[in-house]
Amino acid sequence: MVSSQNLEVKPNVYAAICPSRDVLALIGEKWVSLIIGALDGRVLRFGELKRICEGISQKMLTQTLRKLERDGLVRRTVYAETLPIRADYELTELGNSLLPLVKAAKLWAEMNLHQIEKNRVSYDKRN
Amino acid sequence: MVSSQNLEVKPNVYAAICPSRDVLALIGEKWVSLIIGALDGRVLRFGELKRICEGISQKMLTQTLRKLERDGLVRRTVYAETLPIRADYELTELGNSLLPLVKAAKLWAEMNLHQIEKNRVSYDKRN
Repeated sequence: MVSSQNLEVKPNVYAAICPSRDVLALIGEKWVSLIIGALDGRVLRFGELKRICEGISQKMLTQTLRKLERDGLVRRTVYAETLPIRADYELTELGNSLLPLVKAAKLWAEMNLHQIEKNRVSYDKRN
Repeated sequence: MVSSQNLEVKPNVYAAICPSRDVLALIGEKWVSLIIGALDGRVLRFGELKRICEGISQKMLTQTLRKLERDGLVRRTVYAETLPIRADYELTELGNSLLPLVKAAKLWAEMNLHQIEKNRVSYDKRN
């Protein structure tokens, strides 16, 4: 793993060696953007997130939340005094800074879905 | 495959059944955003795209371009009179509409890489 600290050039997603590519890949992940968007302005528990992000498996949600916590996008607060142990999830400042991007992606996908479906049908007829 | 035309509700990426999720996943793909960004304001040939998107394999570039052409984000123009046959790639109007998102994602990844790497080191020490 190459650390960006060792690169003398500034991060560049087009460079094969640059780890900013992993970050680009991460923020593009479907579940990442759905989870970040779900946490917009609110604190949620695991079960609430699971219900909102329809179709996500327990395992995928666990893995994605851990990755987001490790990267510092999501903060996990554990209340050990309750049984079962309660954990809350919320966006950090860094996670919040990703919100405009996540919202724009959601909007673009929803707005252009019909056009893309038409394009696919038309392409498949031609080919 | 459920078509959005059959859904009576408006597209919603949080709904498991909604195909806008596939679109969200598509535009989040690392190679998709790199290719769209590379085509910003210019027409490129396959070999040029391959050189710019460092590390992409011939197969992955071929597959991704075909997907983008099918979805109507990229236009492929073939000049059959040349040998080997020359093909140019450029963004369609729909592809251009994705540029602000692609640029914002690139910028965010490059700007926040160092912070994310620090967060990872700090998380790994704690866990």
